[in-house]
Amino acid sequence: MMRHIVHEQLMNEDSFFRRNLVNCLSGYKSLNLIGTRNEHGKANLAPFSQVFHIGAAPPLVGILFRPHTVKRDTLENILQSKYFTLNHVTPEMYRQAHWTAANWEESEFEGTGLTEEFKVDFFAPFVKGSPVQLGCSLVETQTLQINQTVLLIGSIDQIFVEEKGLRADGSLDLNILETVTVSGLDEYHVGEKLGRLAFPKPGIEPAEI
Amino acid sequence: MMRHIVHEQLMNEDSFFRRNLVNCLSGYKSLNLIGTRNEHGKANLAPFSQVFHIGAAPPLVGILFRPHTVKRDTLENILQSKYFTLNHVTPEMYRQAHWTAANWEESEFEGTGLTEEFKVDFFAPFVKGSPVQLGCSLVETQTLQINQTVLLIGSIDQIFVEEKGLRADGSLDLNILETVTVSGLDEYHVGEKLGRLAFPKPGIEPAEI
Repeated sequence: MMRHIVHEQLMNEDSFFRRNLVNCLSGYKSLNLIGTRNEHGKANLAPFSQVFHIGAAPPLVGILFRPHTVKRDTLENILQSKYFTLNHVTPEMYRQAHWTAANWEESEFEGTGLTEEFKVDFFAPFVKGSPVQLGCSLVETQTLQINQTVLLIGSIDQIFVEEKGLRADGSLDLNILETVTVSGLDEYHVGEKLGRLAFPKPGIEPAEI
Repeated sequence: MMRHIVHEQLMNEDSFFRRNLVNCLSGYKSLNLIGTRNEHGKANLAPFSQVFHIGAAPPLVGILFRPHTVKRDTLENILQSKYFTLNHVTPEMYRQAHWTAANWEESEFEGTGLTEEFKVDFFAPFVKGSPVQLGCSLVETQTLQINQTVLLIGSIDQIFVEEKGLRADGSLDLNILETVTVSGLDEYHVGEKLGRLAFPKPGIEPAEI
């Protein structure tokens, strides 16, 4: 049985229902902790589900910052310092990752007990124990007219990845790395592989590789 | 053991390795089949992993179209007709979903055996059997200077969702709906829930809800 909801009905629903539903509609989302530091050197850490691939050569990543629903410390720190880190989240740390979104006075590292890791002279803190850590620098930002969402593009300058999850062809085994994915605003999952499929060609059903 | 790769090393790797790696770095991605029709009424269907939440009121969705790596039929059809559908993929149809990315002469529906579904007088085809089907209309597009990636914003006008996966609070149970997620270019997974966590507050560890 399919429930049918049209735009006008959704706009008449209470905002809690609407926000939960619309945040789930795109499906599973990537989950990354973004590490930054402000001009006084204070570290900040925040969970983001709006990080995505922009290009491989040069390696670029995009992040969407929505105007009212997320704290803006991360965006302000990046605009000021130009640097940030992206860190995959594991089942061992997903509760702390979620908790970093609270309105902390102190640094989210101090508050939640996650450990900051500084290396290769990179300005922003990595998250210790994260199996995929990226050091990135600001390239450009654009603001969407429709609702003042900011799209930030970053260059991927440093990659740290657990050897066990890096395949010979460059792809990552996210099951082995235990990368966590998020649905909606607050629900966390790991992935369970169905299959990896060959390059698709007309008339030939894609084989598993 | 962490493997460390810096930007310059990555640029010197072969393009196959680089593309595989960089496409995996953001983590799990949403997977949607986008249904469109061209000016002659011919249906098109293509898999996208770059669909994300833009806002809930009004309900908006964003899609990134990269310049060289995906077929442009979908983008051209949306710019022309203004309408498209988003359809979640299940384990039963993920091979066909992948296969729609082949360079078909005929419609991807005919080629892969997926079934088009027309309803509520919506111009673009839905995918029959998909547990979450959205009918969307074009709002705006922006082109990124850095690599000509196009960001398209759509309004969510029609929502069809399997009752069994819609919770009273509006959130979707993607495990029950069997929504598929993708990593890299070609690897498919279902989600396995770790937990759903309460709204985060400083000093109080988030409880499971």
